Amino acid sequence: MQAPSQRTQVKRGRKRADYDPQLVKQIIDQSLLCHVAQIHDGYPVVTPTCHWRDGDMLYWHGHTRARNLYASQGQSVCVNISQLDDLVMARSAFHHSVNYRSVTLFGVPQLIEDESEKRRQLELFVERLSPGRWQQLRPINEQEMLLTAVIAMPIHEASVKVRAAPPSDDDEDYGWPVWAGVMPIQRQWGDLQQDPKQTEDKRYPLPSSPVNGAI
Amino acid sequence: MQAPSQRTQVKRGRKRADYDPQLVKQIIDQSLLCHVAQIHDGYPVVTPTCHWRDGDMLYWHGHTRARNLYASQGQSVCVNISQLDDLVMARSAFHHSVNYRSVTLFGVPQLIEDESEKRRQLELFVERLSPGRWQQLRPINEQEMLLTAVIAMPIHEASVKVRAAPPSDDDEDYGWPVWAGVMPIQRQWGDLQQDPKQTEDKRYPLPSSPVNGAI
Repeated sequence: MQAPSQRTQVKRGRKRADYDPQLVKQIIDQSLLCHVAQIHDGYPVVTPTCHWRDGDMLYWHGHTRARNLYASQGQSVCVNISQLDDLVMARSAFHHSVNYRSVTLFGVPQLIEDESEKRRQLELFVERLSPGRWQQLRPINEQEMLLTAVIAMPIHEASVKVRAAPPSDDDEDYGWPVWAGVMPIQRQWGDLQQDPKQTEDKRYPLPSSPVNGAI
Repeated sequence: MQAPSQRTQVKRGRKRADYDPQLVKQIIDQSLLCHVAQIHDGYPVVTPTCHWRDGDMLYWHGHTRARNLYASQGQSVCVNISQLDDLVMARSAFHHSVNYRSVTLFGVPQLIEDESEKRRQLELFVERLSPGRWQQLRPINEQEMLLTAVIAMPIHEASVKVRAAPPSDDDEDYGWPVWAGVMPIQRQWGDLQQDPKQTEDKRYPLPSSPVNGAI
C-alpha cells in the first residue's frame, strides 16, 4: 500500500511500515494516550493527551487555553500513538529491538464550533472510556461547555509501524551462547478504587472498562 | 520551585506542576519510551523512541539516517515522557481526569562523536534494559558502531506534571448517585518468550528486567 503523502512515507524500517486505514484505526482505538506535536513560538512542543476516534476523525479535548490546543488556528500538527509491547533481546546489542504498534498522523486540526456536535463528541469520549456512563453523570452545564474545547483532525495522512517478532540476528550469531527472545510488557486494569468520599454502603453499579480493551 | 525557563512554565493545572530535578529524573527512569518532537521542513514531527539517562543528560539512539535524529544539527527539540496510571471517574463528565506522570524537556540535542563515549552510552542503554547483558552479547563491531548514532540532550530545562488522586468534584456533586473513583492501569513483565530458534535444551541464564522497574 502506498503512503498517502511524502511525509508519511516511512524512511527507516520500511518492512515494518503500513498505510492500511483499518490498521491505523485499530491502533488508534487500542490506546488511550496520544502525543500531539505542534510548533509554538518557533519551537516544537509535544503534549500527551487522551484521544478518541469517530469515523475518519481523531479527537482530543482540553481547557480552552490548554497547550494541546495551540495549533487550533489552522497549523499543521503531528500526532503519534504508540504502545510498547515487548523488549526484543537479540544475541548482539545492535539487533536488540522492541515490539510495538505505532501510528503517526499529520494534519491540520480544527476546533469544533458547533455546540451540539461538541457535546456529542464529549459523550463519545466518555462512552469510549466507560460505556453507559454518560447517562449516569450529573449533566454537563453551559459553563463547562464554554471551558472545554474539542479539536478534530482527519486521520487520512497516516502511517503505521508495527514490529511483533522474535529477535532477528545475523546468521553467524544464532549460535552465540546468550538467552534470546522477548520480554513482554503486559497491561491490565487493576481493581477499581472507589472514591473514599463515597462510603462503602453506597453500592452504585461499577463503571465498565474502555471499549475494545483500550488501555 | 521555579520553572527553569518560560517555555517550561506549566500554564494549565499549575498545582500539578513541579520542576524538581530529582522528580524529573525519577520519571525519566521509570519509563522506557519517550516522544521526541522536532521541526522538519517547517512542520512538526513526533517520533517515539527508547531513551536512557546518564547523570544530567538524556540519551536516545537510532540508525544514522533515522527520523528521530533529524534535529541533531543544533535544532531545539521537545521530549515528553509520560505514563498513564489511572482513569479518574468523577460525578460529572467535566471532572473526569487521568492520573499520570509526565516530564517535558526542551533542549538542543547533540550527536556523540567520541567513539568510546558512544560505546559507553550504548553499554549503559543495554545495561539499563537488562543489567549484566552487555558482557554476554556478541561484541559490537565497527560497522555497527558506524551505523548507530547516539544523541545526548541536557535535562536542565524540564517540567513535571503529576496527578495521583481520587476524583475532585464540585462540592454540590458529591452526593450524585454514580460510582466514582479510579480505574488503575497496571503494567508488568510477562513470562519471557525464548526465541524459537533456540532449542529448549539451551538453558542460558535468563535476562534480568530493566533497572528501577522501568516499563
